[in-house]
Amino acid sequence: MRLGFSKLLTPFRIILTAYVIAMFVFSVLLFLPIASQPGVTVSYSEALFTSVSAVSVTGLTVVNVSETYSGWGVLFLALAIQLGGIGVMTIGTFVWMIFGRKIHLSQRMLIMVDHNQIAFSGLVKLMRGILAVAIGIEIIGALILGTYYLNYFDTALEAYYQGAFGALSAFTNAGFDVTGQSLIPFADDYFVQIVNILLIIAGAIGFPVLMEIREYLTSKDNNFRFSLFTKIAVSTYFIVLAVGFLGLWFLERNEYYDGLSWHQQLFFSLFNSTTARSGGLAVMDVSDLGLASLLLLSGLMIIGASPSSVGGGIRTTTLAVMFLTIRSFAMGRSDVKAFGREIHPEDRQKAFIVLSVFIVGLFTSIVLLAHFEDMQQVQLMPIIFEVSSAFGTCGLSMGITDELTQASQNTLMVLMFIGRVGLVAFLFSIRRREQKTYYKYPTERIIVG
Amino acid sequence: MRLGFSKLLTPFRIILTAYVIAMFVFSVLLFLPIASQPGVTVSYSEALFTSVSAVSVTGLTVVNVSETYSGWGVLFLALAIQLGGIGVMTIGTFVWMIFGRKIHLSQRMLIMVDHNQIAFSGLVKLMRGILAVAIGIEIIGALILGTYYLNYFDTALEAYYQGAFGALSAFTNAGFDVTGQSLIPFADDYFVQIVNILLIIAGAIGFPVLMEIREYLTSKDNNFRFSLFTKIAVSTYFIVLAVGFLGLWFLERNEYYDGLSWHQQLFFSLFNSTTARSGGLAVMDVSDLGLASLLLLSGLMIIGASPSSVGGGIRTTTLAVMFLTIRSFAMGRSDVKAFGREIHPEDRQKAFIVLSVFIVGLFTSIVLLAHFEDMQQVQLMPIIFEVSSAFGTCGLSMGITDELTQASQNTLMVLMFIGRVGLVAFLFSIRRREQKTYYKYPTERIIVG
Ligand SMILES: [K+]
Ligand SMILES: [K+]
Repeated sequence: MRLGFSKLLTPFRIILTAYVIAMFVFSVLLFLPIASQPGVTVSYSEALFTSVSAVSVTGLTVVNVSETYSGWGVLFLALAIQLGGIGVMTIGTFVWMIFGRKIHLSQRMLIMVDHNQIAFSGLVKLMRGILAVAIGIEIIGALILGTYYLNYFDTALEAYYQGAFGALSAFTNAGFDVTGQSLIPFADDYFVQIVNILLIIAGAIGFPVLMEIREYLTSKDNNFRFSLFTKIAVSTYFIVLAVGFLGLWFLERNEYYDGLSWHQQLFFSLFNSTTARSGGLAVMDVSDLGLASLLLLSGLMIIGASPSSVGGGIRTTTLAVMFLTIRSFAMGRSDVKAFGREIHPEDRQKAFIVLSVFIVGLFTSIVLLAHFEDMQQVQLMPIIFEVSSAFGTCGLSMGITDELTQASQNTLMVLMFIGRVGLVAFLFSIRRREQKTYYKYPTERIIVG
Repeated sequence: MRLGFSKLLTPFRIILTAYVIAMFVFSVLLFLPIASQPGVTVSYSEALFTSVSAVSVTGLTVVNVSETYSGWGVLFLALAIQLGGIGVMTIGTFVWMIFGRKIHLSQRMLIMVDHNQIAFSGLVKLMRGILAVAIGIEIIGALILGTYYLNYFDTALEAYYQGAFGALSAFTNAGFDVTGQSLIPFADDYFVQIVNILLIIAGAIGFPVLMEIREYLTSKDNNFRFSLFTKIAVSTYFIVLAVGFLGLWFLERNEYYDGLSWHQQLFFSLFNSTTARSGGLAVMDVSDLGLASLLLLSGLMIIGASPSSVGGGIRTTTLAVMFLTIRSFAMGRSDVKAFGREIHPEDRQKAFIVLSVFIVGLFTSIVLLAHFEDMQQVQLMPIIFEVSSAFGTCGLSMGITDELTQASQNTLMVLMFIGRVGLVAFLFSIRRREQKTYYKYPTERIIVG
């Protein structure tokens, strides 16, 4: 029996391959001499790390972008971020569309699985919508930030350059910066922070949510109903945001926040709670926070954003299904409900799998880094923080990434890659062809927990 | 509508109450002046912590038992351990049986849920068997250790006292010691270690397994078949033991083990991998190990032992269902199989719940302790270690428990309590009466992970 090439190339494997190719191509571009500042030499492993971090829109860095990369370098970086953010496959299909070709079913499937989308209809429309919404938001953000930055920067060129890169980085949740120190210079500028928060949320809340909101606003249909996905994703997103906000304020009110004004406390808590969910931009050196806050931020990074968004983590819906299942069990129910709908058992199963795989991967990586760094006497907290940040493709950092051994940096690269591809897609890509079961084994109960 | 008293007293709530009462009674006994050595004063919070740790067979301590407690104190402690180990309800039923009363169905239910047992038949026989096997193993262990200890101790009384307490502590996985420094004096005595390892495994492998093995050995039926539970629990138990053994050896071979003989390396790895699964006895100061090893040990403590055993943790079967579900998904199957049997969907659901609740509880507790200890500058690793040890009712310690603030110690007490009661039973106890659903909501798919 011959195994055909097309059988090996399942949609999920094509996506995986596309990401690998994109990461490789950009690593070469970022390694080119024209990409770096005069007099600065970038090693290939640094270029690869930057490329993986950019395509996976994580934002962890081993070099200072503004000091290392030239105009060309920043352009390559911006392209990598844009490509990663909107999705290699979305852009591929868009190009396909521009060339006027008819989209084949297999191509549709690609986008569907890349955005983890189940509904089949209107897929092409969805893709066109994604690009319109994404680029529209980025342009508006760039104009607002750029114009406002005229107060900060000497030339209009520099102001709009900073504004454009900042809007791209915030909306794609990439978390890269060309200021040299993230948003720390704007620690007291609440306008900049609010714009960034809104951009981060727009990118992290999930494209289907944005599309539904647009449809709701433009639709003449009075019976428009938001999908269960949108209801669960949005409510979970904001509940976690509120928990992070209150938690940070509670933990730091007598510590780091001691002596700060109420509005500074409010914005530090709000911005950190938002950025930890996948944004990766910083308005302060997070390593100044207490141990409990750093753990809380790690937890937020692990939870992450909505599926089908630029964010990562176990995703809001997984967390929601976890809690809904626990609640349903504690209430003596066998089905799991939310917003007058029942959660499909297969989705509960998927949530269990995502949670399990994430925890096993997270734990293994932390142990590996602790082992690799044992000689270097790196503390446990920064290790947990950077691993959570990489796996959740968040990009917040306690500043140790560039000091890590090569083995640790390689581990972080693998985590960013899997984190971006998504656990479900990753498992699907190693998955065998669906097996028809011709006989059923008898079921036997066991004792659990 | 009146809510009857009997309706509030569900079996699970009775068990919870029984544990609370036992912990309270023993805290008072251990607080009595006759319980402590002359000249030593025990505070009530110390007595309470010791009692909770003993009844939950955890083994974390805030006092040095041999220096603090008198003969009476050690006797109370031994009783608390025995009671906790075999189960408050098992002993209760045994007394009931001795008094010749007929066991009512509700009483049977109690034992069933206490040991998380599903099969209904032969329950009284099982209980009698549990006690026979448990006390039989303890007596044999006490005789072997006591006789062997004649080499170590001056008087036969002291040798058999140490042997008896040691056998009780090992088999019930309590992890308490009256040597003053756990099994560290026997770090080079492999005979003592082997006996302790066998006792710990016998207690942790699960009573149903022991009963089935006994039935297998004594049964004349050639068609005897081990249950799916026994097969999964035993194989998972030993796979995790092997992973822990190999992992510790790999991580420490050039570190702590550097310069040690191969048999010392072997026994340190074997004993630590075994004791971390719930035993809690120590042959070395674990805080001398590297960061990676300490995390690995924490992971082993979190996994824990089999259900229906003296051990804690998420339990072997939960871990097994996790991995079987992932494997089944990666292989493109919708059902989950093991040993030619299908795992019941409800058991998969339970595993998901146990995992979710455990992780949420673990994370919250670590954040709380990090917050409570912030002033004291306690490191993160010992916090994670002690929390894992308490929630997994293991009892291994990096030695910080007695230095913790009262708030942290209270948190550990709550964790030991919930850890012993078990997450499923704990959730059942807060569970409302099973709700009949008279209408079914429509099912709607969402995007997960
Ligand atoms: K990011
Ligand atoms: K224990």
